[in-house]
Amino acid sequence: MTTRIVELRRGILKKNDELAAGLRASYAAAGVLVLNLVSSPGTGKTTFLERTLRELKARGSRVAALVGDLETDNDARRLATSGAPVRQINTHGICHLDAEMIGRHLESWEDVTLDGLDFLFIENVGNLVCPSSYDLGEKIRVVLLSVTEGEDKPLKYPAMFNSADAAVITKIDIAEVCGYDRELALRNINEIRPGIRIFETSAKTGAGMEEWLGYLADERSRRN
Amino acid sequence: MTTRIVELRRGILKKNDELAAGLRASYAAAGVLVLNLVSSPGTGKTTFLERTLRELKARGSRVAALVGDLETDNDARRLATSGAPVRQINTHGICHLDAEMIGRHLESWEDVTLDGLDFLFIENVGNLVCPSSYDLGEKIRVVLLSVTEGEDKPLKYPAMFNSADAAVITKIDIAEVCGYDRELALRNINEIRPGIRIFETSAKTGAGMEEWLGYLADERSRRN
Repeated sequence: MTTRIVELRRGILKKNDELAAGLRASYAAAGVLVLNLVSSPGTGKTTFLERTLRELKARGSRVAALVGDLETDNDARRLATSGAPVRQINTHGICHLDAEMIGRHLESWEDVTLDGLDFLFIENVGNLVCPSSYDLGEKIRVVLLSVTEGEDKPLKYPAMFNSADAAVITKIDIAEVCGYDRELALRNINEIRPGIRIFETSAKTGAGMEEWLGYLADERSRRN
Repeated sequence: MTTRIVELRRGILKKNDELAAGLRASYAAAGVLVLNLVSSPGTGKTTFLERTLRELKARGSRVAALVGDLETDNDARRLATSGAPVRQINTHGICHLDAEMIGRHLESWEDVTLDGLDFLFIENVGNLVCPSSYDLGEKIRVVLLSVTEGEDKPLKYPAMFNSADAAVITKIDIAEVCGYDRELALRNINEIRPGIRIFETSAKTGAGMEEWLGYLADERSRRN
């Protein structure tokens, strides 16, 4: 049983990688920078992304978001308050987004075409394990970690942190009351993914957002 | 491909259910109350469990814990400070504990036999999705949710909340600074799992711990 599952799993991931390669090529052809946001449930992906979308729009960027959840369209409704086009993907029990889901939703999205966008954000299902294996064709995978979660998460979920291109610490406005140990968190992230770019942010106060938005602008211009 | 995976998955879950039924029978024969603690990463399962173990020991109960993580034995080391026997299960990439892992670790655990215990706690891998499908033979599944995670988690992860027998809200000492909406959180839990017993706790201040320990004592005496 186990061997068959491993083989099938390998087959599924290979198929996903092929679809992701196709998506990556179409993102590049359209000149859109695609980011995949991954984290534990409750890290604050939606709040962080909502502020990012609003600020990018205010600077004249063309942005959109796909958001994955097992159930509900709560997050799509929250993100839509930014004014950006947003589409909810309900996975109905599946613990991650995959390239097929992304391709299917992009194809049938009437309001949005890739070449009309500067940035496309994909907010993954809240899960620090399974989404690490599924390439969505993104250019940048962003792992988020809140100050409330414990500084050892990079060591305990190494595959996710190791596959990320950037890390965002969220909720730094409540760092002190949570007894957050900044040195230790940064050291643990760097142990798993040495030299990764780290942003320390609060979507509530706006701390760290300028640096993050500057990074997005740099990455976008580098790719065009 | 998808049909074959669904069939194989069904086979794996059926096999797990059979093993779990065997475990359940051996827990009952030994008269040990077994609890399976599930939550998102960073909810505070380990801190809550450490305090629970310490308080139960102080009251003369015989307790032990198995703790699952992808990597590291950080949690086992933290829990062991309670003085209780603790064993780490590293899943090396697997996103949940299963009945086979529990059986294997119990069998080879030299310090502990089931009939020498009043309570056995199993701390699952931090994941609000996948562990919901895997019965570990436990009598009580406890889902934990911290005040930092967002009140809508029960609606977004219904399978986990729906399969739980009790819910524990953690970190209520920082509820106010997090803007936690208590009414909404309780309403959402009750919408998915009407009438579930809910404990509002802080392992830091001790709030709610008496009620939780009373519940454990009641459940334990009911089963013997």
